[in-house]
Amino acid sequence: MTVNYAKRAEHVGRSATREILKVLDRPEIISFAGGLPAPELFPVEAIKEACSAVLDEAGEQALQYSTTEGFLPLRKAIVKRMEAVGVPTDADHLLILTGSQQGLDLTGKIFLDKGDTVICESPTYLAAIQAFKAYEPRFAEVAMDDFGMRMDELERTLQQNPGAKFIYTIPDFQNPTGRTMVLERRKQMVALANQYDVVILEDNPYGAIRFAGEALPPVKSFDTEGRVIYLSTFSKIFAPGFRLGWICAESDFMNRYVSFKQASDLHSDVFAQRVAAKYLELNDLDAHIQKIKAVYHARREIMMHCIETCLPGHLKHSAPEGGLFIWVELPESINVQALFDRCLKNNVAFVSGDSFYPNEAKQNAFRLNYSNMSEERIKEGMKRLGEALSEYA
Amino acid sequence: MTVNYAKRAEHVGRSATREILKVLDRPEIISFAGGLPAPELFPVEAIKEACSAVLDEAGEQALQYSTTEGFLPLRKAIVKRMEAVGVPTDADHLLILTGSQQGLDLTGKIFLDKGDTVICESPTYLAAIQAFKAYEPRFAEVAMDDFGMRMDELERTLQQNPGAKFIYTIPDFQNPTGRTMVLERRKQMVALANQYDVVILEDNPYGAIRFAGEALPPVKSFDTEGRVIYLSTFSKIFAPGFRLGWICAESDFMNRYVSFKQASDLHSDVFAQRVAAKYLELNDLDAHIQKIKAVYHARREIMMHCIETCLPGHLKHSAPEGGLFIWVELPESINVQALFDRCLKNNVAFVSGDSFYPNEAKQNAFRLNYSNMSEERIKEGMKRLGEALSEYA
Repeated sequence: MTVNYAKRAEHVGRSATREILKVLDRPEIISFAGGLPAPELFPVEAIKEACSAVLDEAGEQALQYSTTEGFLPLRKAIVKRMEAVGVPTDADHLLILTGSQQGLDLTGKIFLDKGDTVICESPTYLAAIQAFKAYEPRFAEVAMDDFGMRMDELERTLQQNPGAKFIYTIPDFQNPTGRTMVLERRKQMVALANQYDVVILEDNPYGAIRFAGEALPPVKSFDTEGRVIYLSTFSKIFAPGFRLGWICAESDFMNRYVSFKQASDLHSDVFAQRVAAKYLELNDLDAHIQKIKAVYHARREIMMHCIETCLPGHLKHSAPEGGLFIWVELPESINVQALFDRCLKNNVAFVSGDSFYPNEAKQNAFRLNYSNMSEERIKEGMKRLGEALSEYA
Repeated sequence: MTVNYAKRAEHVGRSATREILKVLDRPEIISFAGGLPAPELFPVEAIKEACSAVLDEAGEQALQYSTTEGFLPLRKAIVKRMEAVGVPTDADHLLILTGSQQGLDLTGKIFLDKGDTVICESPTYLAAIQAFKAYEPRFAEVAMDDFGMRMDELERTLQQNPGAKFIYTIPDFQNPTGRTMVLERRKQMVALANQYDVVILEDNPYGAIRFAGEALPPVKSFDTEGRVIYLSTFSKIFAPGFRLGWICAESDFMNRYVSFKQASDLHSDVFAQRVAAKYLELNDLDAHIQKIKAVYHARREIMMHCIETCLPGHLKHSAPEGGLFIWVELPESINVQALFDRCLKNNVAFVSGDSFYPNEAKQNAFRLNYSNMSEERIKEGMKRLGEALSEYA
């Protein structure tokens, strides 16, 4: 049998993190590799109540086919949350997604012909790279510093890539770096997008998980021409298992997203949508998010302390005020893959930084997750990581 | 603002049926347009028990991120169901999908470069056309008769389209015609696929809903070279709201499906998967399917009777032994769009047949659904349809 796959099949492999997660199931390994929320914080009892209420009140509708756009009361609840962060909108400009990952896939599908350019932070979210690659684009990477994507570099990239389809950015507690784009740059990004007539895809899964510093308005809040497409999710503030994300965009974009979502999976799980809406009706999600933030803050403090005390002093690292990740840079003398192998022998794991570069992989950094583990395990894992690193001394 | 969408955005509009469903929400309209299961048969109480059991026993895991492949006990339960219909397999060759619609999308994504050929029945499932069109293929339609896709026509089409990527077929109670491919043709289809070295995508959402005649083994049961990809769903036998489908295929295909599903939505709703698995553990799904079959059989009988008694005698129509649809052909003198408009005024609706042709739309047929409505409403709706048609006499 000869099988001729589409050319795009050459570009899409499995995600390094998700494949690593499978290997790391062994209980003796302390894994900082995933990007998982703390499961002990999931509001299991409240969700159980919401499930029963949904099935009692509207069982037949909750289990039937439904509209692609999504359950209206859930969209209305999201409208309120969008307004609270400075993005006034309405339910017509919201579409429920099967996780925000689907928003990445649909954005690629809607905008990218083979050879088109995507502009993104360097490094950037590996599953976004994977989603976009299915549509065979070129990637133009823009350097970051501690204040987010560099705007001088962005302008140079826009000049060098006329007709680029969109700028992909994760402004808050970026994955993988944990860095946040400062206020002034958010305004500048919109101004540059207006000037160079390009769409912005703002991916904001972590914005609500800010445990220090001052909240910044989304890039979309500065949008004057309806060119910012905003993507977020319930995965980090409620529960990722339900696969519920959303996209907020202007009508012409929205029409495309709805059509292509219809072709992709008809609609997202109706029952999950109704359970989420019922949960939001019966509970205070913001109070729940406060609990998440307190726990993640404490874990971040421990991990930062361990970086200072267990790892060699010369390592540069980010200092996130929210989200789930810290980015650690290595001296040129240490290859991150070799370090990863050494760490695995030491029963500790991370994601090596090379996975986060769409073009040439850099071997000089790794991502640590602190949300998914007790403080004791963080301490023990960081000790093991420090031991592995000390062998390079 | 200038927006340059991908070229594929020109090809994908919203599905006619799904858009019609929204219009047809008015209670005075009797709609035979949808393809919805009977919601009064959804096992709401059993699902409520399953939800509680899942949350009590494994709440944290049910709400967390999980593997792309899907929940293993659910895949194992599907293995048993596949074996029961003549397709021995194992969990490694099963992938849980976000509805079988996702399987259509992923198949397009994996196999189709722009300009590649998809071979399909004429007419065929409109949402499959929509899913494939996103990848800009050509469609080669193969004529059907009452015994399914015609094999002489298929061979001619294979000769005329060397390098066609796959044959898309719905062998059981086809959507939209309700026709079933006879046993001999299933074997012939595999033999032709082997001879012409082409993949078969067997879409089988309705096979389990057979209420008359003898069950036929899936096309995949005759697969000698691992070239048949089998797609099915829980939507018609359990509940569509959960968006749970599956694909069964050989390892090389499976690797691609897993990679591309990862890029599309990471994984399907874990909670829904665990609830389905728990339902299957605690209940007898086959007994439940018996109930569905009894109800649909009665509704089909009523609708067939009404076709004979309320509609003009010269109309050709299919006589399905299962599934959800009957296909009615019109004389050349009646344009189906005009009839549709006349019917809407009469508060009755169907899907006009033209939606089911990927190339040139034929205006000479329509699809009737009988699963979603009481016998009384079927009678009343068919009376209204007969009145609309009688104006052409």
